[in-house]
Amino acid sequence: MGATIKDIARETGLGLATISSYLNGRNVREKNRIKIEAAIEKLHFEVNETARGLKTNRTRTIGILIPELNNVFCAEIISEAEDILRQKGYATILCDCRTDPAREREAIAFLLRRRADGLMVMPTGENGEILKAFLRRKRPVVVLDRKIRGLDADCVLVDNEDAAKKAVDRFRAAGHTKIGLITGPQDIYTAAARRRGFQAAMADAGLEVSDSMVVCGDYTIQGGARAMHKLREEEPEITAVLVANYEMTVGAMIEINESGLRIPQEMSVIGFDNLEFAKAIAPRLSIITQPTREIAREAVDLLLKRLSGDAGRPTQTVVLPTDYVEGKSVGVRAEEVRTGLSNRKLRRG
Amino acid sequence: MGATIKDIARETGLGLATISSYLNGRNVREKNRIKIEAAIEKLHFEVNETARGLKTNRTRTIGILIPELNNVFCAEIISEAEDILRQKGYATILCDCRTDPAREREAIAFLLRRRADGLMVMPTGENGEILKAFLRRKRPVVVLDRKIRGLDADCVLVDNEDAAKKAVDRFRAAGHTKIGLITGPQDIYTAAARRRGFQAAMADAGLEVSDSMVVCGDYTIQGGARAMHKLREEEPEITAVLVANYEMTVGAMIEINESGLRIPQEMSVIGFDNLEFAKAIAPRLSIITQPTREIAREAVDLLLKRLSGDAGRPTQTVVLPTDYVEGKSVGVRAEEVRTGLSNRKLRRG
Repeated sequence: MGATIKDIARETGLGLATISSYLNGRNVREKNRIKIEAAIEKLHFEVNETARGLKTNRTRTIGILIPELNNVFCAEIISEAEDILRQKGYATILCDCRTDPAREREAIAFLLRRRADGLMVMPTGENGEILKAFLRRKRPVVVLDRKIRGLDADCVLVDNEDAAKKAVDRFRAAGHTKIGLITGPQDIYTAAARRRGFQAAMADAGLEVSDSMVVCGDYTIQGGARAMHKLREEEPEITAVLVANYEMTVGAMIEINESGLRIPQEMSVIGFDNLEFAKAIAPRLSIITQPTREIAREAVDLLLKRLSGDAGRPTQTVVLPTDYVEGKSVGVRAEEVRTGLSNRKLRRG
Repeated sequence: MGATIKDIARETGLGLATISSYLNGRNVREKNRIKIEAAIEKLHFEVNETARGLKTNRTRTIGILIPELNNVFCAEIISEAEDILRQKGYATILCDCRTDPAREREAIAFLLRRRADGLMVMPTGENGEILKAFLRRKRPVVVLDRKIRGLDADCVLVDNEDAAKKAVDRFRAAGHTKIGLITGPQDIYTAAARRRGFQAAMADAGLEVSDSMVVCGDYTIQGGARAMHKLREEEPEITAVLVANYEMTVGAMIEINESGLRIPQEMSVIGFDNLEFAKAIAPRLSIITQPTREIAREAVDLLLKRLSGDAGRPTQTVVLPTDYVEGKSVGVRAEEVRTGLSNRKLRRG
């Protein structure tokens, strides 16, 4: 047991720097890695990360806190972030708070007790105060996807308003004027931003948006199905709908499927995220996609910069663009396109 | 800074046991939690988990090692496991090895260095030896979903052979005799077991399975699309297909979609996992589902039992049943059902 790093150096013939790199989780040459691992096994060497943490006051762990691991958008970001962090020698402690602010609060307290060096968080939006406890302890926080009012932390967002505008523009180009929106709870940053973008784009086009043309669901599959049902009941004249997150897109497709509504003849749809799902749907769904890998990379980058002593720099917000990926779920409203009348005149009673 | 647990007790008027419960991550009454957290803030108390770990030689962390976080089956299991473990005061360190045995080996070494108390692993299948290093250090390992030859660890599986049999039986009841299988790489336990189950059920029914009626893909979406394409090219007479994991089901649906093949008129399909995806597909997909929450609960249960001193007990394998969920993607082959001829006689040249 009592083997030290020097014993490993003697056994392998390698320098202490190389062995130290390996033990810190950084990359070393394949042949050196094999030698070191053989020596570790032979000498029963155990790095005591615990003792190391006590000495450095760093645990080399990053807490990742998300609302739903079963959300594809979250899973893609975490998968990428965890991969980069591990290569840099950081362990990621994952906490899935199931969109429950109470669980989220507990998880933040838990990560504080576990002395995570830093935090990546896609917040429910209600725990800004306890997140400040992290910052007070000089442990960096990067907020993903959503902003928290009053929290001065680095932040990685997508341009949600532009995402909604892209969809409205696409529907308008196909002649649609009665366009609905299914979005999330208005206390969630992205849901509110997508709604603002939608309403601004509709206003720019001189199109009216009544209250019942916007349904705020709960960002779940079941909520998406309910929202689609409600929208059709209350606004039967709608010919096109933007569904502004992935889970609600799945729900809307379930409702459309079960009600026998034909896409795009009876309803044009633009969904959100998950290209594979879009391709598996018939007809293939047109979607707005978010750059999950870039979000993860930017977030890790911000976090590691802070951890490497850049703590005094003012906080930064990185805004990444979304993409529109064409499918076959937007149909042409021939009449409106052909006549070229102003959209206002086409409104029917 | 120097505040101790006794200072917290004095400040809150609570017993040391309650405060200790809170600090160990166990549940305490809401009003006590609020008192304790207020006192912690006021007195700038910090639990030093690092020092605690040094004393107990326990880090209260569990490593979770999976092939793909973007795999819904993995994500659902982790979400549930993480939730239970956190309630018990354990942090889960997540490692996503992207189905790469080299990354998996690195991740296991990483978790050893981080002194994880135990490991839940859905293995690629190639790193049994390094997993033994965990067991040698008396740290329990629970293997999820797959077995590793020669590794004496607790294990939670589903009955994969029966899952395939359920699908074959359903197709047969609808009169199908030319049934294809799309499964995964044969070095992955589940893929091989599903193939065995398929072939046994076909043999029991007196139905022939030629080599080209079984396509072994790679458990990815792209692989599922390629496998579906190959199956149709090489076995154009097939009228029904079982796709034996979720990602390949999505891929098969993309290929079917893009080739314009009609379900169930031209092809009957039974997929795997993800009820919501199945419902969003038109016509609704029939699927085999796996009990992800139960898998997680059983695995955590086995792990915690070992950690609470039950280390000497012989290892256990828990096998859970799958379900068949009817959709509209299995069509009736009227002729075969009506005539009631033996399946062999119906084979056409």
